[in-house]
Amino acid sequence: MTSAPLDVVGIGNPIVDVIAHADERFLADENLAKGAMTLIDAARAQALYAKMGPAVESSGGSAANTMAGLASLGGKGGYIGKVRDDILGDVFRHDIAASGIRFETLPAASGPGTARCLILVTPDGQRTMATYLGACVELGPEDIDSGLIEAAQITYLEGYLFDPPRAQEAFRTAARIAHGAGRRVALSLSDPFCVARHRAAFRELVMGEVDILFANEAEICSLYETGDFAQAAAAVRFHVDIAALTRSAHGSVVLGQGVDGQNEAHDVPAVPVDRVADTTGAGDLYAAGFLFGLTRGLKLPTCGALGSLCAAEIISHVGARPEASLYELVMASGYI
Amino acid sequence: MTSAPLDVVGIGNPIVDVIAHADERFLADENLAKGAMTLIDAARAQALYAKMGPAVESSGGSAANTMAGLASLGGKGGYIGKVRDDILGDVFRHDIAASGIRFETLPAASGPGTARCLILVTPDGQRTMATYLGACVELGPEDIDSGLIEAAQITYLEGYLFDPPRAQEAFRTAARIAHGAGRRVALSLSDPFCVARHRAAFRELVMGEVDILFANEAEICSLYETGDFAQAAAAVRFHVDIAALTRSAHGSVVLGQGVDGQNEAHDVPAVPVDRVADTTGAGDLYAAGFLFGLTRGLKLPTCGALGSLCAAEIISHVGARPEASLYELVMASGYI
Repeated sequence: MTSAPLDVVGIGNPIVDVIAHADERFLADENLAKGAMTLIDAARAQALYAKMGPAVESSGGSAANTMAGLASLGGKGGYIGKVRDDILGDVFRHDIAASGIRFETLPAASGPGTARCLILVTPDGQRTMATYLGACVELGPEDIDSGLIEAAQITYLEGYLFDPPRAQEAFRTAARIAHGAGRRVALSLSDPFCVARHRAAFRELVMGEVDILFANEAEICSLYETGDFAQAAAAVRFHVDIAALTRSAHGSVVLGQGVDGQNEAHDVPAVPVDRVADTTGAGDLYAAGFLFGLTRGLKLPTCGALGSLCAAEIISHVGARPEASLYELVMASGYI
Repeated sequence: MTSAPLDVVGIGNPIVDVIAHADERFLADENLAKGAMTLIDAARAQALYAKMGPAVESSGGSAANTMAGLASLGGKGGYIGKVRDDILGDVFRHDIAASGIRFETLPAASGPGTARCLILVTPDGQRTMATYLGACVELGPEDIDSGLIEAAQITYLEGYLFDPPRAQEAFRTAARIAHGAGRRVALSLSDPFCVARHRAAFRELVMGEVDILFANEAEICSLYETGDFAQAAAAVRFHVDIAALTRSAHGSVVLGQGVDGQNEAHDVPAVPVDRVADTTGAGDLYAAGFLFGLTRGLKLPTCGALGSLCAAEIISHVGARPEASLYELVMASGYI
C-alpha cells in the first residue's frame, strides 16, 4: 500500500516516562549509573517506583520524542513501535497522534503492559533512567509497514530497540525496505551501555546499513572501543555518509561530505539556556532538528544549528516532548 | 483506633489531571465554560481527550493538591478519597504517599476507573477543566476513618465532593466526628457552578458546620446569590469564624476575629510571578499555605501571605503539585 510522502519514519520503543526529582544519594543507593539507561524488570520497576518521590507522567521513547519534535517543526512523520492495549498505551497513542505523527502499529492484546521509564532528575538537571520494556518486547519484523518506510525520505532507528529480542530483525527489515526504495537510513546509538551490550551488531549495522549516525561522545567512543573522541570521529567517517556527534554543552561535531565530495567537519555550538531543568530528550530533539534540516535540503552546519535549537528548548523544562512550537522557534532564529 | 497527631486531613475527589494547551476557540467549540469545572461522562471524556493536543499526566484533585502543598511546607496531613485499583489509581496513590501524606482509603475493586480531569490551559495561563468522576462516586460515610479525623487539628473538605451522590453524607459524618473531638472544620467552595448545583446544601453546611471557609469571588457571590463581593463578604462573617476570600491577581481578603474578639479584615496582596504558566491549583495551594499558618498558630494576615506565596509557586509552572520545596520558599520569605 502506498502512503502519502513523509519526511521521516521513526522506529523505537514506545514508552511512558515517569519523571521525579531525586538526589545523587538515591541513584547510588539504587545502583543506577548516572546519566545512563538501565533495563529493569517488572518487579524492580514496582520497587523503584515505590521509593521515588511524587512524579509526573509524559509520553516518551527516544525515537517517538524525535518524531514529536519533527512534527512541532512542521515536518511530516510516522512511527512504528509496540504498546499494549492498556491505559498507558492509550496515553502514548493519544500524544503521538495529537502531535501529528502517523502511528498505526497494532497494540499487543496480551502479555506485558505498555513500557514505562522511571526517570530521576538530579539537582543539576541530569536525567538517569530505569526502563521496564513491557510490551516493547513484542515488536517484530511483521510490524514493519513497508508502505510507511517507502513513503519516508529517512527511516530513523533508535538504538535502544536493540534490547528487545526480535526488534533487531525488525530494524534490518526496515533498513532493507528503505534502501530498496532508494531512501536513507539513520541510527541513533542511544546509550553507551546499550552500545556495549550489542557492540558487534551495532558495528555491523553502522558499516553496512546506516547512512546517517547520531551519537554522543560516550556512545561513539563505546562503539569504537576507544577513550579518544577524535579517534572515534575519524573512524566513523569511513562508515557513514553523515555523523552528528553531540557533546552536551560543547555543542556538536558534524561530519559529512559536501557537494564537491570533499570531507566536511563542522563545530556547531550549543544554544545556551538560563537553567538546565531536565536533560531528558536532549539527544532526541537534536536529532529532530537535524533531520528536519536534512529533509529540507539544508547544509550540514544549519542542520546542526537546528538540532542545537531544539535541544535547548527541551532541556529548559521537565519532560522530553516540546512545550513551545519548534516551528516558531526556528522561524525566529533566522536559520531558515 | 488513635492516630499520630496530624495538622490537616483533607477529603476530596482523587483525580489524575491530563493537561494540554488549547486556544479559546477550542473551549468554545467544546462548549466548556472558561475557568470553570464541567462534569463529563466517560463517553464525553473519551471524545474530548481524542480532540486534545499532546498532554502530560499529573496527580491532582483539589484537596489532594492542598495536602501535597501542606506536606511540602513541612506539615503533617492525611487524605480520604476513592480511587479504583487501576493504573491511574496507583499513580494517584504513589504521588500522595510519596509527598508524605497518609492515604489509606480502600480503592474500589470494581466499577468505573479512577477519575481524570481533562485540563485545557489557554495562552493566558488560565485553566478550564472537564472532569470524569469515575470511582469518586463510590465514596461514602463508611470511608471516613474516625481515627484520622480525630487526630487532625483541621478537617478540610473540598466542595467538588458535593457532586458524587453519597459524598455529602461522608462530609457530614466527617464534620460531626471532627467537632465531636473539638476539632475545626474547613471547606473550600471549589467552583461557582458547583456552588450553584448544590447551593442549599452548601449554605446549610456553611451556617452549621464550617469554621473556616475558602472561596474566590465568583464562588462566594454564587453562595449568597449576589453580584456584590462586599455584600457577600459581609454576609459570610455571620456564618464562619474565618473566611479567606481569594481574588486572583488582587490577592485575598481575610476575615476573622482577633484575640480581643474584635472583627478583623485584612487585605493580603498576591505574590507577583514573571509569567502565569498555568493557574491550575492556585486556590488549592493558597489553602495549603493558609492552613499551614493556622495550624502553626500564626496571625491571619501571615496565614494569607503564606497562601499567596504557595499560590505563586504553583501558577509559575504547569501542574497543580509543587515543584519547589514550599518549606524553603517560606523560610526564605521571612514570614516565619
